[in-house]
This record gives sequence, structure tokens and C-alpha cells, in this order.
Amino acid sequence: MAVYTDVPEDLLAEFVAGYDIGEVLAFKGIAEGVENSNYFLHAGGGYYILTLYEKRVDPGDLPFFLGLMDHLSAKGISCPTPVHARNGEALGELAGRPAAIHTFLDGMWIRKPRVDHCAALGTALAEMHLAGRDFALRRENALTVEHWPALFAQSSDRADGVMKGLSGIIERELDELGRRWPSGLPDGVIHADLFPDNVFFLRERLSGLIDFYFACNDLFAYDVAICLNAWCFETDLSFNVTKARALLNGYTTIRAFTSEEYAALPLLARGAALRFLLTRLYDWLTVPEDALVTPKDPIEYLKKLRFHQTVTSARDYGLD
Amino acid sequence: MAVYTDVPEDLLAEFVAGYDIGEVLAFKGIAEGVENSNYFLHAGGGYYILTLYEKRVDPGDLPFFLGLMDHLSAKGISCPTPVHARNGEALGELAGRPAAIHTFLDGMWIRKPRVDHCAALGTALAEMHLAGRDFALRRENALTVEHWPALFAQSSDRADGVMKGLSGIIERELDELGRRWPSGLPDGVIHADLFPDNVFFLRERLSGLIDFYFACNDLFAYDVAICLNAWCFETDLSFNVTKARALLNGYTTIRAFTSEEYAALPLLARGAALRFLLTRLYDWLTVPEDALVTPKDPIEYLKKLRFHQTVTSARDYGLD
Repeated sequence: MAVYTDVPEDLLAEFVAGYDIGEVLAFKGIAEGVENSNYFLHAGGGYYILTLYEKRVDPGDLPFFLGLMDHLSAKGISCPTPVHARNGEALGELAGRPAAIHTFLDGMWIRKPRVDHCAALGTALAEMHLAGRDFALRRENALTVEHWPALFAQSSDRADGVMKGLSGIIERELDELGRRWPSGLPDGVIHADLFPDNVFFLRERLSGLIDFYFACNDLFAYDVAICLNAWCFETDLSFNVTKARALLNGYTTIRAFTSEEYAALPLLARGAALRFLLTRLYDWLTVPEDALVTPKDPIEYLKKLRFHQTVTSARDYGLD
Repeated sequence: MAVYTDVPEDLLAEFVAGYDIGEVLAFKGIAEGVENSNYFLHAGGGYYILTLYEKRVDPGDLPFFLGLMDHLSAKGISCPTPVHARNGEALGELAGRPAAIHTFLDGMWIRKPRVDHCAALGTALAEMHLAGRDFALRRENALTVEHWPALFAQSSDRADGVMKGLSGIIERELDELGRRWPSGLPDGVIHADLFPDNVFFLRERLSGLIDFYFACNDLFAYDVAICLNAWCFETDLSFNVTKARALLNGYTTIRAFTSEEYAALPLLARGAALRFLLTRLYDWLTVPEDALVTPKDPIEYLKKLRFHQTVTSARDYGLD
């Protein structure tokens, strides 16, 4: 959570003048989003979020991300909708960075999700998967099974310094997942980062999904597996099977799992745990001393991985 | 600029339920304010700022600050107005901290103030001084001439490490200002920190003053002297006498200076420069390695101090 770029008021006024949203009335950096700078923007036409894309986002991916939000919004999925400038473009440039204005989405993320939140999440995820099926653009998942060995190579020599034996555990897991990773499962556009802070609720109802900057084409069930990791463990890292059942039932009510997806779920959940273990391990080892953002503990995801290693069938996640 | 405290949504809902502003619709930490945590709050009743007062603010001062904003608002000064809870109180507690909700003030602060902005600032400052005259509470200035020696004592042994000879310069200035500091000038409630980031403009008009957390009872002309330091130097630290004239003319149109205030202005401007030199020096030397906030360069205020030392009369500030 950080704002990286200060935007002078004259540049801002000039940028906003390219849109049909009236003049700027207020503008404040908000502490939301790690990869980008986000600002609350009050203009004559209403309330918006202005995002400046910082270095960690590849500008070449922005048409995919913004196009996806446009597409999903048009299909009735509640998410930030890019506002198009008078020249028709959703993507502009401000203060030397790619920039976009989105509609402001009411709602708050839930710090301690309950069973009903998990059910609503499952439903929304399946609806997003269905709504994305006819989206024209593609983006490969840059953080899936074939990229994990190279990602781990950047941390492997220091992994045992974080926890003794960690390097060997990860190598064995990379090996097994590499051999057993499923193919041929239903796929399409996935969110790939649908943690609780990316899901807004309002009056106990899910009000929208945000932060599509990891979205890509991959297995639908892998997206579900990411959510099992992100939503269904308690703070003591025990697995709450009631939450998992609610999430999976919420999902499969909208889009039924194939028998292959059922069978693959435990392995996909291991993969999802490993993916976040690897990126957190990398961030943990490379974060600069003066960083604004405290890196998240990678060992949390080792513990989740170990749980999934004990799972023998999707029944252990509460599915019948 | 930082948000220090994460507020869980259930505690927030409970807190907001004590006010007549409807239910919470959105809540985001904003990157504004160094001393406190500030949040953008959208509730059924409109848009607000929620402030959590962190350690650097003395809770005993909060009735003064909140009461002052109430008083000034009632007198027609545009500033954040505290929203009173149903129990009548403007000050509550949230997440273990004193907390208050204020009206949301449109406008943006000007990164590079021009002459017309300085004129508007002068007018608004004088209006604030007049409006505060019948405010019932008092708060002594904890950062004025008699406190500077003790403040400097916390940095004096390391001052020469920041700049060779700095310690001697400050000691001579403390001595001279201590001997010559004026008394008996018109006084009342001053803002004491009216830097450009605390003054909002909208459509080229001043739309409001914010951040009253240094406000106190002191000499009116000292508040003007702070503004001369904060608004009338260019980025190369040259003094722009046209801006100073505009500021002073804007001010004296609303509240005329006495002849004693005219005479004291150069000395008060030296005092104001020294006050910010001392606090910045302290912050510079004591900021922790992992601080979220980069300390501001104290030497900027040494250079401003040196300019004021060359000033022989208020005429050098553009006053006739």
C-alpha cells in the first residue's frame, strides 16, 4: 500500500480535461494497491479512481487488463470500469506514466471472511469465469507451473536461510508438480489474485471485484485453488472446511466442475500455495531496507502447501 | 504522508453507527497528514474524512483543535467541520485511538503557488485570525521562542555533522531572538503551520484551510511570518517579493497591521525560519532508518533564515 508518484495539479487538470467527467474538485493519494499509485478523484461528473501504472506493470499488458474490465463490466460483473477519454482511449499518460481513470466502486474488503463471504466469493468467481469466455484478448500466465523453477532459481541459494530445509522441500514440490500438472481442464480468463482485499462487500453482499493486474488465461480450477488458499485458512493456518465447502458450492452452482477438475483440485491447490510461497520468498529476500511495504511471510504458504499435500481428494475440501 | 492504523470493517461500522451519517459505503486510507491516520469515508449521508489521532498528538489538545474547527466553520471560515455523534461529542474512539469524522473539503493544494494564490492566502489568514478572536479555549504555542533552546539542545551536539558551523549559527540566533523577541503585539488563535499543502484551491479560488493540529494562541504577525517563509521563496530559495507583497496586502486588507507589527516582521520571520530549521533538524537526526516518511532538509530553512537576517525593514517584504 503506497502512493509512489506526486501529481502536480496543473498536469492533473490537463489530463482530466481529456475526459467528459467535468473538472477536478479533489484528488488524494490512497493507500491501496501495491504495484500502482492509486488516487481518489472527485470531478464534476462524480467520484473516480485514477491509477498510475508504476514500473512493475508491463505497459504492453494494460490493453488486456483495461479491456477485460470493460468486457466484464459490459457483461454485468461489478468491477471498476475504465472511463474512456474523448479520444476513445481508456489508457492515457500522466506524469510520465501510463494512467487510467476508473469508476469508483463502493464497498469494503473483509478482514476476517466468514462462511457466507466465501460462498458469495465462489459465486462471483464463477460468474467472472463465464463472463470472460468471449473476451477477445489473451494473456499468458507468467506465474504458472513452467515459470516456477526459474522463479525459485532467484531465491534458491538463500531459501535455507529463511527456514532450514526449505530449499529441498520446494525442489521436490517443483519436481512433482512439474510432472503431474494437469492439462486439458476447462480454461479461460482467470483473476489469479483474488485475495480478500480484492473483493468488496456492502451490506453483507459482494459488491465487486478489483485489481485485475494478474489476470491471464489459465485453468479455471486453478483460480478456485488460489481462493481456497487465500480465503479458507484461519489465522492459525488451520483449514476451515466449512468455508471451503461454501466457496466450492458457491462456485459450482454457477459453473459445474468436470470430473477431471474435481480430481485435480488438490494438486492445483498445492500449485497455488507454491506460487505464493515462491513470490513471497523472492520479495522477502529482495525487499530493500528502506521499502515502504513490509514483505509478507513466505512460511505462511509453506504451511498451506503442507496441508494440501495431505489432501487425497476434493472431498477433503468439502465437496461431495 | 502515511496511514498508520488498519481499521477492521466491523469496528468501523460500529463507530459510524454512533453518527447520523448513514451506513459505511466505502473507506480508504489516504496519503495525507503526517501526524495522523486519515481515511476517506463514503457513508449514506455523504463524503467525509475520518481521522485517527496517532501518538504525536496530545489527546488533551483535541478539544481545542476540534472546537476551533467548529468555531471557525460557524464563523464562515471554510475548513473541515467536525461531525458530532448522536451523543453530542465530536471526539470518539476507534481502534484504540481518539477519532473524529470531518466534512470532506473539495479542493487541491498548489505545488507551485503563484502571486494570486499568495494574495488569497493572506486574505484567508486574516479572516481566520478575526474569526478566532472570540474562541473560548486557549492553547499555548509549544514551539515558540522560549521553547527553542530546549528543542535545539536535543540536536546541538550533532548539528555540525549536518553542516559545519550550524551549531554556532543557531546558538547566536537563539540568543538574539531570545533578547529581541517582541511582546505586546496583537495576538489570538493562529494556525502556525499554514504551508501550501494545508490550503486548498478550487477553480483558482481558495476553497479552505486544513490541518489545525499546530493551532495555538500566539502573535498574529508570527503566523504571517510563517507564511512568508512557506509561500514566498522560489525552489532555488530566492525570495519573491511580489508574492510577499501580495500576501501582506491580502492580509492587511482584512486586518491592518499596527506599526509595531510592521517593525517586528523581519524578526518574526527569522523566528519562523528558525522554528522550522529546529524541528527539521531534530527530525533529520532522529528519523528511524525504516521510516515511512522522508525527513525534510533542514538546510532549506537555514537559507531562509539567512535571507531574513539581511532584511532591515518590512519594506523589503514589499510593504510600503
